[in-house]
Amino acid sequence: MQVAPGVRDALALPDLDAIHAAHARVTPHVHCTPVLSSSSIDAEAGASLFFKCENFQRIGAFKARGACNAVFSLSDDEARRGVVTHSSGNHGAALAYAARRRGIPAWVVMPDNAAKVKQANVARFGAAIRLCTPTVAAREAACAEVQRETGAAMIHPFDDPRVIAGQGTAALELLRQTEELDALIAPCGGGGLLSGTSIAARGTRTGIAVYGAEPANAGDAALSFASGRIEPLPPTTTIADGLRTTLAPRTLAALRMFVTAFGTCSEEAIVRAMRMTWERMKIVIEPSAAVPLACLLERTIDVAGARVGIIVSGGNVDLDRLPWQS
Amino acid sequence: MQVAPGVRDALALPDLDAIHAAHARVTPHVHCTPVLSSSSIDAEAGASLFFKCENFQRIGAFKARGACNAVFSLSDDEARRGVVTHSSGNHGAALAYAARRRGIPAWVVMPDNAAKVKQANVARFGAAIRLCTPTVAAREAACAEVQRETGAAMIHPFDDPRVIAGQGTAALELLRQTEELDALIAPCGGGGLLSGTSIAARGTRTGIAVYGAEPANAGDAALSFASGRIEPLPPTTTIADGLRTTLAPRTLAALRMFVTAFGTCSEEAIVRAMRMTWERMKIVIEPSAAVPLACLLERTIDVAGARVGIIVSGGNVDLDRLPWQS
Repeated sequence: MQVAPGVRDALALPDLDAIHAAHARVTPHVHCTPVLSSSSIDAEAGASLFFKCENFQRIGAFKARGACNAVFSLSDDEARRGVVTHSSGNHGAALAYAARRRGIPAWVVMPDNAAKVKQANVARFGAAIRLCTPTVAAREAACAEVQRETGAAMIHPFDDPRVIAGQGTAALELLRQTEELDALIAPCGGGGLLSGTSIAARGTRTGIAVYGAEPANAGDAALSFASGRIEPLPPTTTIADGLRTTLAPRTLAALRMFVTAFGTCSEEAIVRAMRMTWERMKIVIEPSAAVPLACLLERTIDVAGARVGIIVSGGNVDLDRLPWQS
Repeated sequence: MQVAPGVRDALALPDLDAIHAAHARVTPHVHCTPVLSSSSIDAEAGASLFFKCENFQRIGAFKARGACNAVFSLSDDEARRGVVTHSSGNHGAALAYAARRRGIPAWVVMPDNAAKVKQANVARFGAAIRLCTPTVAAREAACAEVQRETGAAMIHPFDDPRVIAGQGTAALELLRQTEELDALIAPCGGGGLLSGTSIAARGTRTGIAVYGAEPANAGDAALSFASGRIEPLPPTTTIADGLRTTLAPRTLAALRMFVTAFGTCSEEAIVRAMRMTWERMKIVIEPSAAVPLACLLERTIDVAGARVGIIVSGGNVDLDRLPWQS
């Protein structure tokens, strides 16, 4: 599945078959993560929630799925020249992990203000890090330079059908692990996870509702979903830093086709949902992963009484800097 | 299984059949918790570790098992008059939970310096709290007073064969969930969990090794195990506050019969093991639950290359006061 320039390919999306193929491809390299629930959180949310724990996934986030699918989709000739991406977060570590599994080189372009812990996460899988100034232009130039020098294949964090298909495998597993779900909720940044989740869910069960969850302070996807255009990020910041990304035309198209509605939430609700999950479920989740529950607590996604699957996107947090501590 | 005064009964222990019976009795009331593992922690420990996640248990700790077995072992006549215990920690919440499940009253005697969060954990299941000064004499007097007033049955946190049998059900499940374990490790405070674990393990598989794990700063059980007498707590303190308890003659007898050896660990290793578990496994565990891994990191328990089950005893921590933060 090659991605070339041009309008048609820039909107190409995986179908359910592609997600099934991705699942077979990534299964040797990622965990089938468990599904947990909590009666006391159900009482707060007014619904029966089934948490798909991608915080337990390789590299601590669902991103391992998309990166592995992309890397193991390459031909041997392509793979030999390696892979490159830009990322300040989990996708960089995921691509480094996938490349190591295949035994090929990886380059990760990171902003020079990226936290040391994030750089270490990439470096521990043997990827080469290229630092650049923290602008879109600089990171694209740096990726292009790596490609010119090495012939490495670009693996975009979300604007890539192979990556979207890989992310959809979490929902595929969740639907097998849990009976009779009425709805699924996934957080939305660039839209790769939500695209894959919605294609997998609606393909598997036509009547299921699929919701996107976003911080109000980074509510561009909800606006884009409504307007049909890619709306810019608001100037506000959010602790769910993994969600501070605009959609691509490809992911916007997927969401407009397969997503039921969006919910947004306050920063306070994110902190409350995150802490509630740690305290009652005894699992470590990152702020972005708390956004679906935060939307339920603020009742901006209406699933009262329903059986609802939630993709818990990741658990990579700095334990020295927790958001409920000043 | 009645516990009356007297030397014989004071040393009575459950056998494997009693633990199987306990498992049938508590199954409707407790979770069969999952077993997790981490290849990166295995590399640090030099062994294959299988973590039985009792931090995901009802009330956040294995104590729900022993309390439920004791409460559901009572005759209807006994149960009607309620249950009483003393506890500054998880056993109080566990007994309150078990009593609520059976629909009977519970009284929990707590030291008047017990943290508000611990009092709230007991109160949320509807138990009555009696505060007393923080001495052994005061808490025993308070329990006796409740028994005189109400006829409630005393359910000791660990010096009770019904409680020991209940705690042993975690090991029973772990041995079913994981193939071919060479060894089990459990933390040791009063010895209820370790007694139940060792009886279950050695009864099920004769050749298995069972280790007790203790902070060096509360290393009384290791000393007692060696000397055959109940040794006092050292004057030092430990962050694994759930383990600051001496053995009873009953638990000492069990450990001398069924435990292979003890390991102890430093406070630094406890903090390191706890943080490593949070960061790499993405689960919230309390300091006491990190003590077995801490002993492995300091190589005071020798299981190099073996397949080792660990009872992760609980996950109740104050998220505002983490031990790696000053």
